Amino acid sequence: MSVPGPTDPRAVVRAVQWSDDTLVLLDQTLLPAREEHVACTDVDSVVDSVQRLVVRGAPALGAVGAYGVAVAMLQAEREDWGDDRLRREILRIRDARPTAINLAWGVDRVTPLVPAGVTAVLTEAHAIVGEDQAANRELSRRGADWILDRVERRPVRVLTHCNTGDLATTGWGTALGIIRELHDRGQVEMVYADETRPLLQGARLTAWECARQGIPCRVQADGAAASTILRGLVDVAIIGADRIARNGDTANKIGSVGIALACHAAGIPFVVAAPSSTVDMATPDGSHIEIELRDGAEVTTYAGARVAPEGADGFNPAFDVTPARYISAVISECAVVEPDGVAPVGALVGERS
Amino acid sequence: MSVPGPTDPRAVVRAVQWSDDTLVLLDQTLLPAREEHVACTDVDSVVDSVQRLVVRGAPALGAVGAYGVAVAMLQAEREDWGDDRLRREILRIRDARPTAINLAWGVDRVTPLVPAGVTAVLTEAHAIVGEDQAANRELSRRGADWILDRVERRPVRVLTHCNTGDLATTGWGTALGIIRELHDRGQVEMVYADETRPLLQGARLTAWECARQGIPCRVQADGAAASTILRGLVDVAIIGADRIARNGDTANKIGSVGIALACHAAGIPFVVAAPSSTVDMATPDGSHIEIELRDGAEVTTYAGARVAPEGADGFNPAFDVTPARYISAVISECAVVEPDGVAPVGALVGERS
Repeated sequence: MSVPGPTDPRAVVRAVQWSDDTLVLLDQTLLPAREEHVACTDVDSVVDSVQRLVVRGAPALGAVGAYGVAVAMLQAEREDWGDDRLRREILRIRDARPTAINLAWGVDRVTPLVPAGVTAVLTEAHAIVGEDQAANRELSRRGADWILDRVERRPVRVLTHCNTGDLATTGWGTALGIIRELHDRGQVEMVYADETRPLLQGARLTAWECARQGIPCRVQADGAAASTILRGLVDVAIIGADRIARNGDTANKIGSVGIALACHAAGIPFVVAAPSSTVDMATPDGSHIEIELRDGAEVTTYAGARVAPEGADGFNPAFDVTPARYISAVISECAVVEPDGVAPVGALVGERS
Repeated sequence: MSVPGPTDPRAVVRAVQWSDDTLVLLDQTLLPAREEHVACTDVDSVVDSVQRLVVRGAPALGAVGAYGVAVAMLQAEREDWGDDRLRREILRIRDARPTAINLAWGVDRVTPLVPAGVTAVLTEAHAIVGEDQAANRELSRRGADWILDRVERRPVRVLTHCNTGDLATTGWGTALGIIRELHDRGQVEMVYADETRPLLQGARLTAWECARQGIPCRVQADGAAASTILRGLVDVAIIGADRIARNGDTANKIGSVGIALACHAAGIPFVVAAPSSTVDMATPDGSHIEIELRDGAEVTTYAGARVAPEGADGFNPAFDVTPARYISAVISECAVVEPDGVAPVGALVGERS
């Protein structure tokens, strides 16, 4: 299958590809047991893939939003939709999940090009992918520099949560990108990867990426994170982000804020890594971020097998918000911002103070 | 099957029974899918049941330790062991798991009666069961009083972790006992039960007990606990304990200290509930508590199925230690101690200051 989109030669695996007028997604619900792809040629399959987490990770969703518009346009041609129908279908993609800003950001960035045609939209989508990969490499260098400047121990012991590598982006990664950069510099002793219930992105995806890259990794229950930090087994925690508000409050995978509290108590850095496309300057603080509440059955069952008794309710918020005061640094391709410090969050998107 | 040991008429289910010269344990590894019992008539089966968590929960392990000595004595009679062999086999039971003090406490309490014969040992073991049930009822009343005195909201929204009910004790429960007492008083709006990975005692056992007792309950991922607390959805967190050191530091199921940090940040009470048999006055502080490190495969698999990639390591400490400064109150049948306050921890075991 030809892959005309930009590629990162260091990517171990590609979560999002455009090929033969089709959005091709690696089905992350099946990893690590099976490597299969989902081919999206209509809006329903794009929305379904986003909602079922065939593809997930804020930066990857940015690319999916952009390519999704192209999918909608091609379907509109085939099925002879009017402009109103096309606009509604594009909005369905934009609203498929609420918390990660990147999905809407990707849709919004290419939407002005819809009148110019599919080729213009695809060119912009490919540009988003190229920029994302470059941003991930740059923020990884900045992050590694910042951490090696703050942490005395060599090599470094890192805790991370969920998955933020090749699979969560269009290539390289954010928090896991910083870990890869540290590993390239010979400075990673151990990665403690929270399994990240309910959907186990840490156990399934981060452990898989680390194994492929030769990065030493231990999977632990999410409940173990605080004590691993308090016992002094970790020098720094690094996580990704789904939306960063103007004051630095950060929404990320459920479980993140507990890690931040433990780092605060232990006096070690808690670092958030994300491309500038994850910063939402229109949201003043974390209280304005909508938190996706997913089906409780994701908690009460696993792989089709019921774990909790019949009739038990599951409570399943997919994200939490870490207040800026518990974040040591937010790192994008543009800047390192210490939310308690002097640099404004706008620096993350290249704004001059 | 006749059950000569003492019974609590309010117990929904009995985890530990003595019947026909046999220690009968409800197999908690199979709940809630199946209710089956394991009959222990030799030391191997007692040790295996303790290590595989057929029976778990600090107070229940106290009874198992005491009855286990009787099992060893009966086996010694059958197999004509000498005193040295019997002493070694009793020590195997005592050391089957390291963290919960109650197991060793139960063994040690009946061991002086071994020369007096099995009937004397069994009488003392039955006494332990009766005292445990009475202690649980009393600490539950004290705990409910303390919470209703501190929490304004009616009815109360509670977060709990792991399982601390009938299944973790010889009847009624500790943290879940307080919740039952609050429920009896019509003062429970909702219980948020952490699923408690890796072995899901919250999802499997606490949700099951709550359902049988008509207590409203939602199961959540362990990573959700901190944000559920910080979002103001919970008024108090109540957990059990496996060992309480002299300064109030408390070992409990992995994930407990993260809940304590979140309660501290949110300004809501974090309550530890345990009978006096869980207090270890010989241990000065939490740094001296041995933390059981269990097989990493419990983390890299989920409900029997492998989730992490082949070869991935699991890191699986079974307990963590919450420093006394993050604990609002430790409640036993003897006293309520606020570790930052004036009452010494010795009051939990009935010591006068």
